[in-house]
Amino acid sequence: MVGYAFMGAAHSQAWRTAPRMFDLPLAPEMSVLVGRDEHRVGAAAQRMGWATTETDWRRVVERDDVDLVDICTPGDTHADIAIAALEAGKHVLCEKPLANSVDEAERMADAARTARESGVRSMVGFTYRRVPAIALAKRLVEQGRVGQVRHVRAQYLQDWIADPEAPLSWRLDKKKAGSGALGDIGAHALDLAQFLTGDTVVEVSGNLRTFVTERPIASDHAGLAGTASSERGPVTVDDAASFLAQFAGGAMGVFEATRFAYGRKNALRIEINGSKGSLAFDFEDMNVLEFYDAAESSDTAGFRRILATEPEHPYVAAWWPPGHGLGYEHGFSHQVVDLVSAIAAGVDPTPSFDDGLQVQRVLDAVETSSASRAWQTVPA
Amino acid sequence: MVGYAFMGAAHSQAWRTAPRMFDLPLAPEMSVLVGRDEHRVGAAAQRMGWATTETDWRRVVERDDVDLVDICTPGDTHADIAIAALEAGKHVLCEKPLANSVDEAERMADAARTARESGVRSMVGFTYRRVPAIALAKRLVEQGRVGQVRHVRAQYLQDWIADPEAPLSWRLDKKKAGSGALGDIGAHALDLAQFLTGDTVVEVSGNLRTFVTERPIASDHAGLAGTASSERGPVTVDDAASFLAQFAGGAMGVFEATRFAYGRKNALRIEINGSKGSLAFDFEDMNVLEFYDAAESSDTAGFRRILATEPEHPYVAAWWPPGHGLGYEHGFSHQVVDLVSAIAAGVDPTPSFDDGLQVQRVLDAVETSSASRAWQTVPA
Amino acid sequence: MVGYAFMGAAHSQAWRTAPRMFDLPLAPEMSVLVGRDEHRVGAAAQRMGWATTETDWRRVVERDDVDLVDICTPGDTHADIAIAALEAGKHVLCEKPLANSVDEAERMADAARTARESGVRSMVGFTYRRVPAIALAKRLVEQGRVGQVRHVRAQYLQDWIADPEAPLSWRLDKKKAGSGALGDIGAHALDLAQFLTGDTVVEVSGNLRTFVTERPIASDHAGLAGTASSERGPVTVDDAASFLAQFAGGAMGVFEATRFAYGRKNALRIEINGSKGSLAFDFEDMNVLEFYDAAESSDTAGFRRILATEPEHPYVAAWWPPGHGLGYEHGFSHQVVDLVSAIAAGVDPTPSFDDGLQVQRVLDAVETSSASRAWQTVPA
Amino acid sequence: MVGYAFMGAAHSQAWRTAPRMFDLPLAPEMSVLVGRDEHRVGAAAQRMGWATTETDWRRVVERDDVDLVDICTPGDTHADIAIAALEAGKHVLCEKPLANSVDEAERMADAARTARESGVRSMVGFTYRRVPAIALAKRLVEQGRVGQVRHVRAQYLQDWIADPEAPLSWRLDKKKAGSGALGDIGAHALDLAQFLTGDTVVEVSGNLRTFVTERPIASDHAGLAGTASSERGPVTVDDAASFLAQFAGGAMGVFEATRFAYGRKNALRIEINGSKGSLAFDFEDMNVLEFYDAAESSDTAGFRRILATEPEHPYVAAWWPPGHGLGYEHGFSHQVVDLVSAIAAGVDPTPSFDDGLQVQRVLDAVETSSASRAWQTVPA
Repeated sequence: MVGYAFMGAAHSQAWRTAPRMFDLPLAPEMSVLVGRDEHRVGAAAQRMGWATTETDWRRVVERDDVDLVDICTPGDTHADIAIAALEAGKHVLCEKPLANSVDEAERMADAARTARESGVRSMVGFTYRRVPAIALAKRLVEQGRVGQVRHVRAQYLQDWIADPEAPLSWRLDKKKAGSGALGDIGAHALDLAQFLTGDTVVEVSGNLRTFVTERPIASDHAGLAGTASSERGPVTVDDAASFLAQFAGGAMGVFEATRFAYGRKNALRIEINGSKGSLAFDFEDMNVLEFYDAAESSDTAGFRRILATEPEHPYVAAWWPPGHGLGYEHGFSHQVVDLVSAIAAGVDPTPSFDDGLQVQRVLDAVETSSASRAWQTVPA
Repeated sequence: MVGYAFMGAAHSQAWRTAPRMFDLPLAPEMSVLVGRDEHRVGAAAQRMGWATTETDWRRVVERDDVDLVDICTPGDTHADIAIAALEAGKHVLCEKPLANSVDEAERMADAARTARESGVRSMVGFTYRRVPAIALAKRLVEQGRVGQVRHVRAQYLQDWIADPEAPLSWRLDKKKAGSGALGDIGAHALDLAQFLTGDTVVEVSGNLRTFVTERPIASDHAGLAGTASSERGPVTVDDAASFLAQFAGGAMGVFEATRFAYGRKNALRIEINGSKGSLAFDFEDMNVLEFYDAAESSDTAGFRRILATEPEHPYVAAWWPPGHGLGYEHGFSHQVVDLVSAIAAGVDPTPSFDDGLQVQRVLDAVETSSASRAWQTVPA
Repeated sequence: MVGYAFMGAAHSQAWRTAPRMFDLPLAPEMSVLVGRDEHRVGAAAQRMGWATTETDWRRVVERDDVDLVDICTPGDTHADIAIAALEAGKHVLCEKPLANSVDEAERMADAARTARESGVRSMVGFTYRRVPAIALAKRLVEQGRVGQVRHVRAQYLQDWIADPEAPLSWRLDKKKAGSGALGDIGAHALDLAQFLTGDTVVEVSGNLRTFVTERPIASDHAGLAGTASSERGPVTVDDAASFLAQFAGGAMGVFEATRFAYGRKNALRIEINGSKGSLAFDFEDMNVLEFYDAAESSDTAGFRRILATEPEHPYVAAWWPPGHGLGYEHGFSHQVVDLVSAIAAGVDPTPSFDDGLQVQRVLDAVETSSASRAWQTVPA
Repeated sequence: MVGYAFMGAAHSQAWRTAPRMFDLPLAPEMSVLVGRDEHRVGAAAQRMGWATTETDWRRVVERDDVDLVDICTPGDTHADIAIAALEAGKHVLCEKPLANSVDEAERMADAARTARESGVRSMVGFTYRRVPAIALAKRLVEQGRVGQVRHVRAQYLQDWIADPEAPLSWRLDKKKAGSGALGDIGAHALDLAQFLTGDTVVEVSGNLRTFVTERPIASDHAGLAGTASSERGPVTVDDAASFLAQFAGGAMGVFEATRFAYGRKNALRIEINGSKGSLAFDFEDMNVLEFYDAAESSDTAGFRRILATEPEHPYVAAWWPPGHGLGYEHGFSHQVVDLVSAIAAGVDPTPSFDDGLQVQRVLDAVETSSASRAWQTVPA
């Protein structure tokens, strides 16, 4: 695994936990953790349960005892690592967004397609697909319970930089992060929308905005906090993004991603209205799916608060009894389960790098549209 | 109508509104308002739309142009007025609780039974039965959607005297009010529970409590506020009441009524769990009924948030389109509709004085039980 | 009052009720109801409490005993009636949308400005401003509790024509209604957004859509239902509208209006995120305002569910005790209170016809933008 | 660890995870798993990550390489194992309820008190105390934000045996489980109530009930399902329990525990009303604490939905960013953290065996009271 910050911790917990709670067809070994700082990566490996460490990801790609590379670094390094790993015959799990540009994403998808021919698998980490309530929503859509989709409204609302004095982080640096709220969290909202509807966005009108253009430079980890606060650096990504969308199948979409919605901590919300019913989800109450069945008599019709914690619900049988909810990191365990199962079965896991590329193309069209002030068609 | 405070205002709004929104078989005339203070009752009558006034209810009972007496006074006067009115052949609508003692209630129920033989109708004002969401709940129970009832948990939570400096009012005076939270709001919770289940409470174990035993004496309306705050008088009723209950049909009940639940303003809540499903209601979100259907597949089972604002729902067709909710006073208009319709049809409206008496008996058993620290059987 | 359908009923209830619950400086008399069908308008007048009737609104405008004309007709007649009434020196209350075109709205606003010089008042009926929870939200914004507004997300979701077999009504006819979801309900969402923020939308990107282009022609009231269902007519307005917006003050807006959101009955929702806090409202739970105060310690910060039923909340003191919620029509009573108070005080009520015109311009820009597939500036 | 069913799985996940996410002062080793069936315990140990197995817990108590015994068996074996372990100088973590009888619990508490003198620690597994939202509630009570407690209403509602055809399990067998809903889940509600208020229940009036007295005998794991369904066995414990309580400090309590509340899957709910504010929690939305501060101005007072996922909230800093909620098993990890920290610090962890004994005494009084139909004092 490359990277050991927030995503690294979540992935490690998943690699440790999935084999303990699920019947996996293969037994993953957590062999090597990669980070540039030898000291820090050593401490992280010990804490997180990795057997060895490396300071250069290139050496890992060359190691024979590595079958799969899990990429948890900022987006600017995804392409190099993923392509090298795929070319070396390693399966790849890559955090989202797939890359910082469409060009990089295309090269990655090409590499994935080539590797696939030799049985090498690749997957991009849109883990929210694997929250049980979302997987249940997908099942209901596939069963036709929602009918033809007419509306998708999706929001991903956070507030962690609503305060103008919140420091610059790599996530506010276009070189590292590619984009701001749009790529970091808007990507999730978009992926969920396309995943749940089984449809793709073909045209967008976007609006991006940076509310706070300069911020205090974050001090080094070691704590030069005193001096840091006086110096400021530019924010080079969007603070917030909104866009309208047309889906190929005719549905209308309304999307919003922001880190400036005070009080909304991780509100990834999606609501779908179709010709037979509606679905609604909010990650801040992640074990719940709301479902409205238009076939119900008006006497008793209403949004049902389905607690997606029944053994019949996706992924749940491996965990606890009904009503004993899961948390954020469980989606990562389910990702490991699905990835390992696909590798063992010799099939391609989803979402693929092609899926990641398509998300990238939509986001790119949103940025273009925001600049041109006109609707933008998403290239097929 | 006798009395023109809070209940008088609500009843007046209902008498004015019901004929405008519903097709009533009779056209009610608001002829006379009664109050002891000539000046005040005159102002109230003009404001509320009553044609004339009286200062002694006895004269109203004698008037030939009065067909119905609506009693909105404190509980200590209910028996005298109601019995006199019934004996004079006037239909009677009496606010709850029916009376301040079982003895009074029995005499009232006797009078109502006698009057009924001459076609004189009587009704006690448990208006919450006529909130559309509650009336819908009743319909679902009658349709067997809940099955055999196993649990009833009902709470009526308010906070208007949680502050020990809140002044004494007649509602805290046993002579006027009969009891405190128990009779004022616990009566509503109990009536709803029995109404919805169609069952009666036969045995109780109660716990009553007065948290604040002395309070500032409320100044006269004219405003001697300065001197008032220094004088204190005793609170002679319960501040809060809780009781366990056994229903004749085997269900277990848990009841609570309090004016000390900070943040709960008018939280009349009831939840019923049966062998086929569950219902839940909270008056603070009064247009909603929650319903869980145990027959649903576990995939999609969940409490439905039914917005009881469809034309198919009880009373709603006369009002606004779906989603345009009703408010507190609409239950009073529905009470007028049902009462006037029953009178026109020559049938007895519900809840009857017998129903009111039975509620009184349960509340009396709760008080007895709280004192004796043992379960108490409710006399049949 | 001209018109006696849904809006006529709501306005009548308000004219009857406001003087009974509030201290009005003037005593409104409900003198004349206007409708084209003599028989029907007569029945309506009797039911709703109007003293006389007319079949031509022109005669009312000429009557000396009429001081105020309340217009509750479809949008295509607003301009003619309002301008004539204003020119005749009558105060005018006009239902929204102000008109079916910007041109009409401009002429109405001109007439209102001229009339104002002679002390004649005019007001457009965006009643949702007068829901207590909304009026409280406005107060909090004015007190600076939200800070600089960054995001407005507003939706007005209904589902009454989600079924393709729902019949054509005048609201689906461009000639009568001007537009569909956009003008009927999107106008409310837009007005609320501008009212609450105190800011105006200056640029929009819109997307309009008609999902069901033909519908059964509604039978005549008298009931030729049998033949009606076989004939179909065209839907000439939008079924749903979405638009992005830029506010003059820099806030980003995301708007949506639809009649195809199954399960959402009257979900007028608005959320505002500012530099100091956030507000959220949903009309389906209309007595509640949610407020997040960013100044709170993180230990106890959270959206507060404010039950806007305290006497300190706008309009509430005239009604019931805390927790005894209001309903849909109460906003209309508050509208009467504010209008009559303004007339008595000799000041202009809000929202003015200029406000209605500005809303019309934004909606017009949304339509233009949807057709041109490019952002559109709203004329000042 | 002894036992490897539901609780064993949860405890194992905690032992594996706590050292990975928290800085523990000691490094726990998962040395030995105990179960009677050699084959099954072997498979479980491998799955759950235990190094070795034993089939007799007595041998574990004798092993020198074991420092701590974690008891996850049904209640009838708790006393024997715990007392032996404590006498052998092993620290003990024992699942709740502490024992199946007050007598056993007293002997265990005695053993714990004796062992404590030699620095041997003991703890009973009321893990819900360690849900962050609950730990935050405790902090707010200790800070005086709730004031003097007047009301506690606590419910633990499940529905897993609401169907009369649900099979007999050891949890319905008095010999194994001691009691039914009362001891299994009512114990949690009671512990939370006493923990949060810092007060103890001194008097109770109880009502126990078994709705379904016979059930199908569960087939052996190997699957004799066909024959099993025809045979029935008696349910020897309560299906549901309710009780009123008086706290030493004067608060009134209302408790309910049931497995017959259709639609409530794991609804452990507690609401506390005090002289300064109120708190409310529902485990079905476990990352949320609701708090009402009576000191707030009435304009903005309301229950706050605190998402207890901030780094400042108890236990949260070790996990994910704000809004990324935790799940059921996290409380078990926090239990490991607190237990290991207490052992390392040489202090006694809580809840102690004395706390477990006191809970047992209250539950015993509830059972006695239910039989005698009178209030019962809880022995000190």
